[in-house]
Amino acid sequence: MEKRLALIAFFILVHASRLLAQSPSTIAEVPRQKRNVMRIDKQQLFQYGVANAFIDGLYEGEFSIEQLKEKGNFGIGAPNLIDGELTIVDGKAYQSNAKGQTIEVPGALMTPFAFVTTFKADTMISLLDIQDIKSLFARIEMLLPNPNAIYALRIKGTFATMRTRAFPPVRQKPFKPLAQLLDQQQFFEMKETAGDMIGFYIPGYLSGINIVGLHFHFLSKDKKSGGHVVDVEAKELFIEIAELKEFRLHPPESKDFTKYKFNGVNSQNLQKIEKGSN
Amino acid sequence: MEKRLALIAFFILVHASRLLAQSPSTIAEVPRQKRNVMRIDKQQLFQYGVANAFIDGLYEGEFSIEQLKEKGNFGIGAPNLIDGELTIVDGKAYQSNAKGQTIEVPGALMTPFAFVTTFKADTMISLLDIQDIKSLFARIEMLLPNPNAIYALRIKGTFATMRTRAFPPVRQKPFKPLAQLLDQQQFFEMKETAGDMIGFYIPGYLSGINIVGLHFHFLSKDKKSGGHVVDVEAKELFIEIAELKEFRLHPPESKDFTKYKFNGVNSQNLQKIEKGSN
Repeated sequence: MEKRLALIAFFILVHASRLLAQSPSTIAEVPRQKRNVMRIDKQQLFQYGVANAFIDGLYEGEFSIEQLKEKGNFGIGAPNLIDGELTIVDGKAYQSNAKGQTIEVPGALMTPFAFVTTFKADTMISLLDIQDIKSLFARIEMLLPNPNAIYALRIKGTFATMRTRAFPPVRQKPFKPLAQLLDQQQFFEMKETAGDMIGFYIPGYLSGINIVGLHFHFLSKDKKSGGHVVDVEAKELFIEIAELKEFRLHPPESKDFTKYKFNGVNSQNLQKIEKGSN
Repeated sequence: MEKRLALIAFFILVHASRLLAQSPSTIAEVPRQKRNVMRIDKQQLFQYGVANAFIDGLYEGEFSIEQLKEKGNFGIGAPNLIDGELTIVDGKAYQSNAKGQTIEVPGALMTPFAFVTTFKADTMISLLDIQDIKSLFARIEMLLPNPNAIYALRIKGTFATMRTRAFPPVRQKPFKPLAQLLDQQQFFEMKETAGDMIGFYIPGYLSGINIVGLHFHFLSKDKKSGGHVVDVEAKELFIEIAELKEFRLHPPESKDFTKYKFNGVNSQNLQKIEKGSN
């Protein structure tokens, strides 16, 4: 009964905040036709970089955070030279590095691999008693209506445990593949931390271009900690979901990318890196 | 010497036609800022459908030619129920069926898989003494500066031989995979035919989503014949090339696509279908 009330309260809250956000004073400035055009853009996942090339050592970014923010206000990625993890929330970009620091990054920072959308939830879900990331992912995937669609997800709550990781920056070329740098990852464990998990569900046909399945970065409410999520425990989480209708890829134009040979890098490496372990 | 003159004449022609196309009277209507925005769109490959699912039997289109034309004026694809081959040139869409007919199709026709761009060449090349499609493709690939970029190509000329194929439409569900329908292909051989090869170069990382490598459909100058190009012979061909900077995928939202399981359909089938034989 109590759970049900919490869920109802959550929906009322979300809808109230939406109504406030769409108050006539903000809508009135934009003509109807333009609003429709913007709506289409909002349902798009924009990506710079190709996962298989990135994890194979193409860590030098040639796309700036400023450019990235023009494509969306919500997303994840890697900072230049994989110096930590990148999280874009509400139009601001944060870097969580291997020293455990999280800072807002300047627009001039480059990224070798990142993907963003203009987040607008179409579905809200509340989940209780989350034991670990595996069961959280299984429960979310069961709830997604279309396994072959792309989804953006924002998971809010107070996390009893939030376990993240971040890579230290690489220094010298040639860079090793990411799968050979796993021993350099730094792990962080936060307890009773409020914050947001920012991420996506990527369907199977984007394997190799992106990382298939669910993938999240964390940003604490005080914006002081974060990283790539490897485990999580929580009593209750509020999940906002947006189905994205299009995928837009901007391949790098760097010399390294031009010369890179795509010969079916196996997806096992991608999964290993995503999970942070074997 | 004669060849050189022909090449020079070709370049003058192309540039003259370009200058005419960009006469002040057409440009004046569009404000500068809007022109820039449109320029970005022109460098994009828009695709509806996913190759691996399409060749596995998802032949029912849910995207209309009218919608497709909004995304580009140049491209190739499959008509609904794979009833022949689809070619989009200069904003018009043509269907070349297995009976050897080519007709302009209505905007209401659906497609299960097609990709288009707004064609604007950045490079012109003239090739002499083309023996067969294999050597033509090898020569073109040598000339493309970036094997990991996407290119749109329009090849004009009089073809000593133009060999095409078209599939007859499928009738009853469940549909067989395309690799099992190869014996139903109809082949056509034209001699001394003027026309255009319309197609793309697709880089390795789009394997499975599209078909990697060069891929062309033919449309004769009189618009009366065409199909998927399987072989070609010509004394001289004029190649216009446009590098496309972005790839935009619109995945289907049909029930069949939602239920489709992507489990790494092998790329051999794609290559077999592309070549029209083993």
